[in-house]
Amino acid sequence: MKSDLDHLMKENNLDALLVAGPAGHNAAMTYFTGLAHLTHGYLIKKRDQEPVLLHPPMERDEAARTGLKLKSLNEYDFLALLKEADGDHIRASSGLLKQILEDHAVSGRVALYGKVELGGFYGALRMLDEAMPEVELVGEPGMKSTIRKARATKDVEEVERIRAMGMITTSVMGEVAEFLVSHDVRDGVLVNEDGEALTVGDVKRRINLWLAVRGAENPHETIFAIGRDAGVPHSTGTSGDRIELGKTIVFDIFPSEAGGGYFYDMTRTWSLGYATDEALKVYEDVLEVYEKVYAAMVPQKPCRDIQLLTCELFEEMGHPTVLSNPKTEEGYVHSLGHGLGLDLHESPAFSQAESNTDLLLPGSVVTVEPGLYYPDRGIGVRIEDSTWMGPEGKLEILADYPKDFVLKMRSS
Amino acid sequence: MKSDLDHLMKENNLDALLVAGPAGHNAAMTYFTGLAHLTHGYLIKKRDQEPVLLHPPMERDEAARTGLKLKSLNEYDFLALLKEADGDHIRASSGLLKQILEDHAVSGRVALYGKVELGGFYGALRMLDEAMPEVELVGEPGMKSTIRKARATKDVEEVERIRAMGMITTSVMGEVAEFLVSHDVRDGVLVNEDGEALTVGDVKRRINLWLAVRGAENPHETIFAIGRDAGVPHSTGTSGDRIELGKTIVFDIFPSEAGGGYFYDMTRTWSLGYATDEALKVYEDVLEVYEKVYAAMVPQKPCRDIQLLTCELFEEMGHPTVLSNPKTEEGYVHSLGHGLGLDLHESPAFSQAESNTDLLLPGSVVTVEPGLYYPDRGIGVRIEDSTWMGPEGKLEILADYPKDFVLKMRSS
Repeated sequence: MKSDLDHLMKENNLDALLVAGPAGHNAAMTYFTGLAHLTHGYLIKKRDQEPVLLHPPMERDEAARTGLKLKSLNEYDFLALLKEADGDHIRASSGLLKQILEDHAVSGRVALYGKVELGGFYGALRMLDEAMPEVELVGEPGMKSTIRKARATKDVEEVERIRAMGMITTSVMGEVAEFLVSHDVRDGVLVNEDGEALTVGDVKRRINLWLAVRGAENPHETIFAIGRDAGVPHSTGTSGDRIELGKTIVFDIFPSEAGGGYFYDMTRTWSLGYATDEALKVYEDVLEVYEKVYAAMVPQKPCRDIQLLTCELFEEMGHPTVLSNPKTEEGYVHSLGHGLGLDLHESPAFSQAESNTDLLLPGSVVTVEPGLYYPDRGIGVRIEDSTWMGPEGKLEILADYPKDFVLKMRSS
Repeated sequence: MKSDLDHLMKENNLDALLVAGPAGHNAAMTYFTGLAHLTHGYLIKKRDQEPVLLHPPMERDEAARTGLKLKSLNEYDFLALLKEADGDHIRASSGLLKQILEDHAVSGRVALYGKVELGGFYGALRMLDEAMPEVELVGEPGMKSTIRKARATKDVEEVERIRAMGMITTSVMGEVAEFLVSHDVRDGVLVNEDGEALTVGDVKRRINLWLAVRGAENPHETIFAIGRDAGVPHSTGTSGDRIELGKTIVFDIFPSEAGGGYFYDMTRTWSLGYATDEALKVYEDVLEVYEKVYAAMVPQKPCRDIQLLTCELFEEMGHPTVLSNPKTEEGYVHSLGHGLGLDLHESPAFSQAESNTDLLLPGSVVTVEPGLYYPDRGIGVRIEDSTWMGPEGKLEILADYPKDFVLKMRSS
């Protein structure tokens, strides 16, 4: 949680954090600013001190709404720096950063944050590193970084925002189910009022619409994959594909607050009208593993152990997994889930790597998403919910939704 | 244009480009992949050679759709590298990049690209730099970088995609105008059927909805600012503000293709019902400058000269500008426009800095957006269109829309 930042900085031997970039779609910055329309800026957080936001002068009103201590970038003269640097933007940017750090008496180990264009920053920071021997610029590893560690557990306000996104998400999922089952069927394919086949693209356009109406955005698209596509976990589906009865449909939806805030993430797998015996067996195996793994998710449990348990359960059922073959593209081919918050994927991680020491803790918000994939048989099944471990250590689905596999068509 | 890449690489003395990150909302990557659901990856483009996309194995179908030469990241063993590095992610990432570069026989000057988390990459790249003396990692300055230079002129396919976004944008603008003027008015304020005051937040929700229906997304929000807010160029407006007659409303809308593709950008300023004489005068001044500047935008013209001309025209009319006072927050306070494409702001730049040598060229897609701001008088006016300089050197508004200032209410 945010309140852990100072002691995490101490643990990682950091004197300051330097966050760069816009306030939206840039989790490290949004973590401090909240959702705000700030196109760029810097945030400096020294250990045991209040953060300071440096903002463009034109965005002073938006900056003021963050409630942070402010400083306008107008107080620095970038044009003069650029002239001094003979028009060399990288040198001028490096000079600006030097002035900012000196102004705030920053020295020691400074960790870098922000989703920004790599090229220019890499150049400017290398120069800064040479120009300020009293500063050591630190690139902390993504998932293990100080801010990520703080974000690995959520406070109640964050959980409520994720839950609100969950309510939107389940409501859209319900609309999609209703939309599908209310269609007519011709030759095993869903058709609209004009007798034309409904396509994956049609469904996705509706999803974006229903999300927008509810004030959500969909920065990473939606997975709506049928048949063979369903068997490839990250295939988002083929726009022109028709919606056929009796085929597995993996519907994985992960919208965020409009402007680039908190995410929700869930998946249901459906078979319209009826299911083949083969697909039903795969579905039941996934559901059984979901329930067993869920029951094993208790406080202080290493996330790696949860992933290993998931693999073992699937292997006992005779499915190949990444445990016996890390490169398998059949069976259980990914990890059990991931932390969820301002990024779709954040800490804790469920990687099976021995170096993964992440624990499930009160305050964790994680997805639970076992799945099985058999692309050559045209079958893919994944069941996913976003969950929160409350202060008492009980895991809770933040926004529940029925786990039915077969959706009966209204017309039949 | 993309076809300029090899000779621009030669000009900048580059042997290769290394692009990192996802395929959406990451212009340097999207430039090569097109819109694709790739959560991360690397692209290597050696001079005079076809680019190669390294993609996560689970996303092989999406990768195949890009039409690029492919290599699966499955061919590298990150878990082994992580073990070798005792769980140090930065060292392992650096090792992975080393293997990838060696595999593709990359040496010499390699320019870095991609919108990614700064911290981890900075650390890994510094290590890589030491581990591969045959490689020089180059951070090119944002706007002057090789890929940005290529992107500074658009081919016909790109222009048509931007124009299509323009058609969506003008159509939404029309819906908003119609929505506003069809409201009833009570005590000078727009009210809905229940007699409740319409707010800026209500209008914005409609805008997002109307964009989503048309297959667009709105990653940077919309500016819908009234009264004093209109006088602060980057204020997005206050959600709870009521819509009053006779106040300037700056409506600046800049959506992109869903998934993170090409943008459109336009602004209209409206005064509902009637306009005050004071606001009307400001509006007429902006429109006059718009037309004069537009006429001066001819091929090979330095963009800086266009900005200086804009300032001079406003100063002749008695308005303060950034020419006489670079830090003014009244009058004309920004630059005339910006390049537009996969990023909302790209080359060419209209900065007044002496180092700005960008030219307006056939193939340029730029916004034209003079404006005047008087926050203390509650007045802001900006008129903006996105334009394309065609092969014959003629500037064309990509999607036109009436420039009326006063919108008559239907009820009056």
